[in-house]
This record gives sequence, structure tokens and C-alpha cells, in this order.
Amino acid sequence: MIYLDNAATTKVDKKVLKAMLPYFSKKYANASSIHSFGQAAKEALESSREKIAKKLNADPEEIFFTSGGTESNNFAIKGAAWALKEKGKHIITSKLEHESVLSAYKWLESNGFEATYINPDKYGIISPEKVQQAMREDTILVSIMHANNEIGTIQPIREISKICREKGALFHSDGCQSFMKEKIDSKMDGDLFTINAHKLYGPKGVGALFIRKGVRIAPLLHGGGHEKNMRSGTENIPGIVGFAAATDTLDENEVERIRDLRKKLEKDVLGIEGTILNGHPEKRLCSISNISFKHIEGESLLLRLDGKGIMCSTGSACSSHTLEPSHVLVSCGVPIELAHSSIRFSLGKDNTEEDISKTFSVLEEEVKKLRELSPFGK
Amino acid sequence: MIYLDNAATTKVDKKVLKAMLPYFSKKYANASSIHSFGQAAKEALESSREKIAKKLNADPEEIFFTSGGTESNNFAIKGAAWALKEKGKHIITSKLEHESVLSAYKWLESNGFEATYINPDKYGIISPEKVQQAMREDTILVSIMHANNEIGTIQPIREISKICREKGALFHSDGCQSFMKEKIDSKMDGDLFTINAHKLYGPKGVGALFIRKGVRIAPLLHGGGHEKNMRSGTENIPGIVGFAAATDTLDENEVERIRDLRKKLEKDVLGIEGTILNGHPEKRLCSISNISFKHIEGESLLLRLDGKGIMCSTGSACSSHTLEPSHVLVSCGVPIELAHSSIRFSLGKDNTEEDISKTFSVLEEEVKKLRELSPFGK
Repeated sequence: MIYLDNAATTKVDKKVLKAMLPYFSKKYANASSIHSFGQAAKEALESSREKIAKKLNADPEEIFFTSGGTESNNFAIKGAAWALKEKGKHIITSKLEHESVLSAYKWLESNGFEATYINPDKYGIISPEKVQQAMREDTILVSIMHANNEIGTIQPIREISKICREKGALFHSDGCQSFMKEKIDSKMDGDLFTINAHKLYGPKGVGALFIRKGVRIAPLLHGGGHEKNMRSGTENIPGIVGFAAATDTLDENEVERIRDLRKKLEKDVLGIEGTILNGHPEKRLCSISNISFKHIEGESLLLRLDGKGIMCSTGSACSSHTLEPSHVLVSCGVPIELAHSSIRFSLGKDNTEEDISKTFSVLEEEVKKLRELSPFGK
Repeated sequence: MIYLDNAATTKVDKKVLKAMLPYFSKKYANASSIHSFGQAAKEALESSREKIAKKLNADPEEIFFTSGGTESNNFAIKGAAWALKEKGKHIITSKLEHESVLSAYKWLESNGFEATYINPDKYGIISPEKVQQAMREDTILVSIMHANNEIGTIQPIREISKICREKGALFHSDGCQSFMKEKIDSKMDGDLFTINAHKLYGPKGVGALFIRKGVRIAPLLHGGGHEKNMRSGTENIPGIVGFAAATDTLDENEVERIRDLRKKLEKDVLGIEGTILNGHPEKRLCSISNISFKHIEGESLLLRLDGKGIMCSTGSACSSHTLEPSHVLVSCGVPIELAHSSIRFSLGKDNTEEDISKTFSVLEEEVKKLRELSPFGK
């Protein structure tokens, strides 16, 4: 199998799993238990927090563990809005955010908030100027993702963060796809930052929210007061330990190796007639190539590649069960028929040059076959 | 080590871990991915759902996976209140619920709802009559836990459920401690039922909410529309598979064996002068003994037992970092000094008769020593 769906989820790295294992059946205590066995779990929790904080240039007390990216996004957005609702009711985001951001915004709209959705340019970039123009006196929150999950475009979050700070609005960014692939400095890149483990060769079911010191948001999960009263629920110690270990799976060299593989794939695939790269050609994650194949239905191509053992996707796994064209591509102005003909190849650390060559040769053949079947292709 | 803190969390069972392992690094796909590798993950998800549903006499489509008991309780309570807010604003619970229920109620109170907190009797039982009396025309939700996490008292949820159904209010019950220890029939025991894995020799970070067919509650985590739009977020497949496997770790024989161990422990310990059993003598979980030791501070005794390798707790692990006496014991009318002198022994499937004998002999000695040190003990 050639797995090119790393933006959907990744294989748990061997070292990550090894780090997790002792916490299932050996050091399994509840980190809130006051006996020494509980304290050992607590230590694992806190050293994991410290390790992850460092990667964001943050303090450990600014990291709050959650069950994943969706929870972190809901927590950040609803929590900020709820905490600041007396100050203002206007919130800003973009049209190409992940569903968990867009749906949280829609929920807030149905609860008395007013939202502005900014359009990206044709490359999927949200311009800081547009954010500036959308700001109002009563704007309390802006949420713009760091790197898009379908097309990989990287947003100018540092500039947007600066504008928000000047205007006194909180800035949240979803960094699930970018964490450890692009540099993030929590001192400059926002007030609230979402990260998770399963896009990074760590386990599913664990994520975190960076909350800048001094920023007050409301909790989403109330209860026993874990995570300094900000996120209740027994801490998932094996998951958290795995998350921390996962931050060691990518370094700069590996990121550049993946980027080279992606470039090789693109060079070859874009040589096929009637192919178009979606997203920004340069300002893009090392790992994501989103390509439209004219006159072909993306899903048909996906299933043919699947039949040859190559796993990729037509867009976000989270929205795979809808017949709608990708809201991300549509927001960039990609025509609907081209949006329906797109495939996302998302590369990862386990991919080899051979994977890429093999993918290209299968792809070339399958595209040819599908076009022969298509009335438009002839 | 003798681990008697199974109500805080449990050791992941070997078979559970074995069931989980392939889903970390072999069958690791995103269950929402439409390629065949994703479908394999989806099948594991659905067969786990089916297995868990059976244990509650529920249909698979009535089971919604979450990140744990706290999330399930928040989801059930906030979701029900939000969905029914036009119908009424009155909600009922008891004073001895888990913090995640009480805090969700407090949050709803600060958002325009009116809550009634029912007092238990001295054994920690919530009488159905009191629930009946508290019901109003505008009561939309009642939440009474199945078995208490500190004293183990089992509530008459079937009778309470019946009252709620007659009055047209939803009934939620937190079954984190009771699941697989006490019989639950979703057809009769309520509309919303919380369960989780880590109290049952399964992994931390995974739980579920039973939502009766036809009952509409609002989602808590919005996003990609997982779990039929009720709980978004990439499914934690290894965790969910582990949860399903964990339902095989206890059967009736094992539950009775644990109950016999608990009875042996109680028979011996209650023979020590100045000891009082908290909770109901009979209507109680197989696994929990909460005992007050007059003239002794519970935490001192806990730490001494810890020094001898015996792990137990003074109450809920979730509230371990507060100096307040247990709200559960206080609600049962236990005097504050006795509440502070209590220890919770929570037994599990890995405990042996030898563990219990050893615990008693260490306990007898340490109680004696502590009382010699105490001005009241002399």
C-alpha cells in the first residue's frame, strides 16, 4: 500500500507507540490521584506539557490538553465568544476554514453572534487587509487557520495576529496541519492555537489548545476542574505522552525531504494534460498537493487508485460523505466541475521516492483510462 | 503494589490492549476516508458500536462515541437543555452527582436555566418521591447518576425514569461506575446514559453517550459531522475498539467475586473501633467501600497506606485537589470531621484475597499509630 492520505490521519510512529505503552497497563493511575502512583502519572502529564510547549515557544501553563483538533477549535471559539459576549458580538473567520471552525461559528450565529466570513484569493490566501477591513468596534474574535487541510495554503497569521492585537480582538488559529511542519512562535502568532497528535504520527483522540497567559476564555467541558479548571475530564495519559513523543517525528530535514517528494510528484503529474494545481504554488505545506484532473470525477479516480493500493482523498476526510463540492475550492473560485475533479495527495514521513514514481505511473494510466470513458475526454 | 483505587481508573486489560494495538500502526486510517483502508477503520468503529449497544440492550444507532464520561455528561445535559430551552427552563439533579454533572448544571444556571438539587437520604439514596415532588410543568431534564463514585450507592433509576417519562421530561443517568457491574436496560432506564472505558479496564480518553431513538439533543462539539452530526471529531478508533473489548472484562461471576472481597474487607475493617461505613449497606456497587475512621484525617491515612504500597483515595480523584470535605458525604449528612476521616477503597478484577488480608493488617496498624498521635485518639 502507498499511503498518501496523511492529512486525514497518520500512522502512529513506532517510537510514539513505545512511549505510550507503559501508561496503559503499568503506570496507569489517574493523574489526579494523590497517592504516589497517581503522582507518577501526573509527572508524565507535566513533562509532556513542557515538551509540547517548547515546540510553540510557549510556557507549559499555556497548554491545555483536549480530545483533539475539533474539541480545541470548539473550545477556543465558543470559549472566547462566551467569555467576551458582554464586550461585543462580532466574530470573523474565513470561508476556507475546517468544518469544526465553520460549524462553531454557525452555532454562535444561532446564539446571538454576528459573523463575517472572509473570502480568500484564488490561491486560498486570506489577506491581512481584508481582515483589517472586516474589523469593527465590537469584534471580539478572529479565527484564521494556519495551513489549509485541503490545499495546504499557508496564511499570514503573524500579520493577522498583529492586526487583532492592535484592535483588541482575540486571534485564534487552527494549526492541526501545520504543527511541526511550519514554525510557530506563540509569542507572535496569536492568542489561541489548536494542535493535535494524529496528523503528526501520534494517536487519535488527543490534542491541545494553546491559550496565551492572561487570555480568559470560558471552558467547554465542565467538571472536576482538570487542566486548571479549563478542561475537565480524566487526563488521557497514554495519549498525551504519545502526543509529546510525536513532536519528535518531524524535523527540518524531514520536512524538506517530504517537500522534495511533493515537488517531484507535482512536476510529473502536472505534466499530464488537463491538470491544474489548486492552492498557492509556493506558500504551501510541504505535504499537500491538491490537483484537478479535467473531465474526470475525483471520486472515480480515487477509487481506481485505491484498487491499485494507493490511498488518497478528494478533500477533507471530515466532509467525505457529502456530495457537495469542496467548500475550500469553491471559496477560491475553482469552478464546480474542477472542484469535483480534484484529488488531494498528502505525503508523510513514511513515503519514499519509489512511492511517488509508482503513484505517478498508476495515475497516468488511470487518468488516461477514465478520460477514454468520459464523453468530454474524447 | 496493591491497587484499591479502581473507581479512579483501572489498569488496561491485556486483551483490551491487544485488541487496540493493530489500530495504531497497521489499520490506522481515518474512518471517514472513502478508500478501502478507511473503510476497514469504519468497520472496526461500527462493530465496536454494535458490541457496546448490546450490553445496554440498545440499538447501535443509539450509541455516540465521545472522549469520556465528562464529555458525555456535558453533552447530555447541555445538549438536552439547549434543545429544549423553548419548552422549559427547569432542570433537576441531585446533590451527590459527579462534578461533571454538577458543573454542567451550574453552567446552565448561569445561562438562564433554573436548577433543583435534590438531597439524598443518609445512605445516599435519591428517592423517586422527591424527584416526583420537584417536577414542574417546565421541567425538561432530570439527571440522577446510576451508582455514586464515592460511596457506591445505587439509585432507583428505573423508577425515576418512569416518573420522567410520565411527566415528559428527559432522564439522563451517569453510568460510568456502574456499566458492566450493574444491569442496565436502555429500554427502561432512561433517555440518555453516560458510559466510559477507563473505569472498566479500557483506555482513558474514550466514552459514549446512549441517546434513545427519537430523543433530540444539541451537539456539544460541532464540525465535520461525525457520529451522525451529533459529535464531530476524527474517531479515536484504537480507543473505541479498546472500549468495546473492555466490555468483556467483567461478567456476573467476576462481579460477585469482587463483591465477596469487598465484604471480607468490610467485615474486618468495620471491626476496628471507631469505623463507620458510608453509603447504603446493601444497595451498593460490588466494588466500593467508603469508610470513616474516627479521629483520623483521611489524607494522612491514605499517605501512610501509600507508603506501604497500598493505593486508595479519600474520595473522587477528580476533586482530590480541594480541601473541601466530600460534597457527596456532606449531602448524606455525614458530619464534616467524619467526612474528612473517610477513605474510599475501590476494588477491581485484579485484586486477590491476599491483597485484602494485607490491606487489613496494614490498615489496622496504621490506624492505631495515627490514633496514638492524635489528641482525640488518646
